[in-house]
Amino acid sequence: MTPERSAPEPVTAVTDTAGAWLTKGLKDVEDGLAIAVDRGGALSEDAISILKAGGKRMRPMLVLLCAGPDGGAAAVRAGISVELVHMASLVHDDVLDRAPLRRGEPTVFASAGPGRATAVGDQLFATAFRVLVDGGDQAAITEISRTAVDLARGELMQRRGAFNLKLSEGEYFERSGLKTGRLFEAACVLGRSTVNPGQSDVISQFGHRIGLAFQMLDDVLDISGPVERTGKARGTDLLDGTVTLPFIAAAESDSGLLEVDLHALDEGSADEVCDRIAGTGALDQVRARAVGMIEEAKAGLGPAGLDDEQRQLLELIADGVVLRYS
Amino acid sequence: MTPERSAPEPVTAVTDTAGAWLTKGLKDVEDGLAIAVDRGGALSEDAISILKAGGKRMRPMLVLLCAGPDGGAAAVRAGISVELVHMASLVHDDVLDRAPLRRGEPTVFASAGPGRATAVGDQLFATAFRVLVDGGDQAAITEISRTAVDLARGELMQRRGAFNLKLSEGEYFERSGLKTGRLFEAACVLGRSTVNPGQSDVISQFGHRIGLAFQMLDDVLDISGPVERTGKARGTDLLDGTVTLPFIAAAESDSGLLEVDLHALDEGSADEVCDRIAGTGALDQVRARAVGMIEEAKAGLGPAGLDDEQRQLLELIADGVVLRYS
Repeated sequence: MTPERSAPEPVTAVTDTAGAWLTKGLKDVEDGLAIAVDRGGALSEDAISILKAGGKRMRPMLVLLCAGPDGGAAAVRAGISVELVHMASLVHDDVLDRAPLRRGEPTVFASAGPGRATAVGDQLFATAFRVLVDGGDQAAITEISRTAVDLARGELMQRRGAFNLKLSEGEYFERSGLKTGRLFEAACVLGRSTVNPGQSDVISQFGHRIGLAFQMLDDVLDISGPVERTGKARGTDLLDGTVTLPFIAAAESDSGLLEVDLHALDEGSADEVCDRIAGTGALDQVRARAVGMIEEAKAGLGPAGLDDEQRQLLELIADGVVLRYS
Repeated sequence: MTPERSAPEPVTAVTDTAGAWLTKGLKDVEDGLAIAVDRGGALSEDAISILKAGGKRMRPMLVLLCAGPDGGAAAVRAGISVELVHMASLVHDDVLDRAPLRRGEPTVFASAGPGRATAVGDQLFATAFRVLVDGGDQAAITEISRTAVDLARGELMQRRGAFNLKLSEGEYFERSGLKTGRLFEAACVLGRSTVNPGQSDVISQFGHRIGLAFQMLDDVLDISGPVERTGKARGTDLLDGTVTLPFIAAAESDSGLLEVDLHALDEGSADEVCDRIAGTGALDQVRARAVGMIEEAKAGLGPAGLDDEQRQLLELIADGVVLRYS
């Protein structure tokens, strides 16, 4: 259920194409994140190590792209804030999932326990608001606050749906929309609002769609592996009781999957279930749906009133979501 | 480390003295909390059960008292927001402390696991911001955001200091200030700001002091018991590795306490350590310091520019902090 593991090729493709403003914006975000995490003397080695562990900064990139060259400091702050919310949600997700590894490294949950992981996540989360409050970005605070409520709803939905093999496609998309689509959407809206307040419906849909595509492809990767690429065991979602679209799709042709006892799974038997899911062709099917969603996202950009460079860059990052999984 | 267990006598004393506006304000807060917890269809039985479990709404009461009869809807929203932050921090604290019981009832941590407790806390926390955002209370958002960062710093400080028998008094007060004093302070500042923006230095100090006194008395209660009153085992803090002022004070006259192996404590041996702390007279000493802090808080109200009724009510609630422990 938790995205982002591979190398940052799509990001490079976008920064190579964009003007220097994007590279500068991303650097400003990076500097701002380092300051934010360490702010007020509240030095937290855990938060700093999460920051250093990297990530592609996909969400800040979306903020900056949707803002364009004139986004300025407000876009940078929004990028920092969105990434902090993302980091907070990763740390708390690892508590929810009792995840031992992320990107091949021990999680805060694993190295410091659920208590400390909860506290670190809280700190990151609170700091996300602080960054916007300090900048006086009222509309952005509203957007992040709504987003945070939705993320928490998504977390709860995941807990409630855990070990439910009969999770419907609708429930999967609702959960993914809340847990992943919503923050991608917020990134786009926040960026766009720095230059065109109140004109973000189309851009919000773009963000939501690529977030869903991102999640679907990430869920495929959890089943397909390989471990060397994902930095965690195959079937980690299933081991957590999290049913995803590949499973739902596979169970349509192999209804025996609905008899699997998720509570009894270990890494070996999870591997077998992954093979069984892959054997149904469900992975290709979900990949194709994700690609379709990306195409929809790009096509939907028509009425957004973007200039050519912006549109090109957004298409590029949308394609990047697919590329990193191919 | 986690306050609030006994019956609501101090609250009753204050509401009996105040005009009808206070009772109405508290009812509006209660109604608003019920709506907030259930908002957006994100029904969470856990959050609702926490709300129903009660609590004295000490912080909303402070908001309303510092606002006075003209606080209006903004004071009610601030009261709701502060209580939501408090509830969120209780739920996350129970994850940190792996606490089985609160007010004699199983915690969300115990009944639903750390994952769900983390998610419920996140939801409450995000909702605290939403309430203020919806009301357009910009200054309040700033205050709550700063407070939230401080609470998280306090949580982390508690984790870092866990099982450190040599915790200094200074560290104890810094941690208590962040974890408890800060939110009491925010409650007072938020209330005051609804009617007198920018005039909250004195009132902020009042809040901080009674928060610290509250924490000290709560820490005494953790050592003194009895279980029937606290709804949890004596020495729960010690069992969590949390060193508090009674322990620090006791170790000054009984340095053998510094040799206790906190990691090896069980309920029986924790009970013995509690008796040993009590035997030094440290409990009376800490109680006296708390009472002194309350007196300081009341005396400090002089330059606050309050009318007579407001001052009387604030003195009454300050005394109430002591009364609930006597």
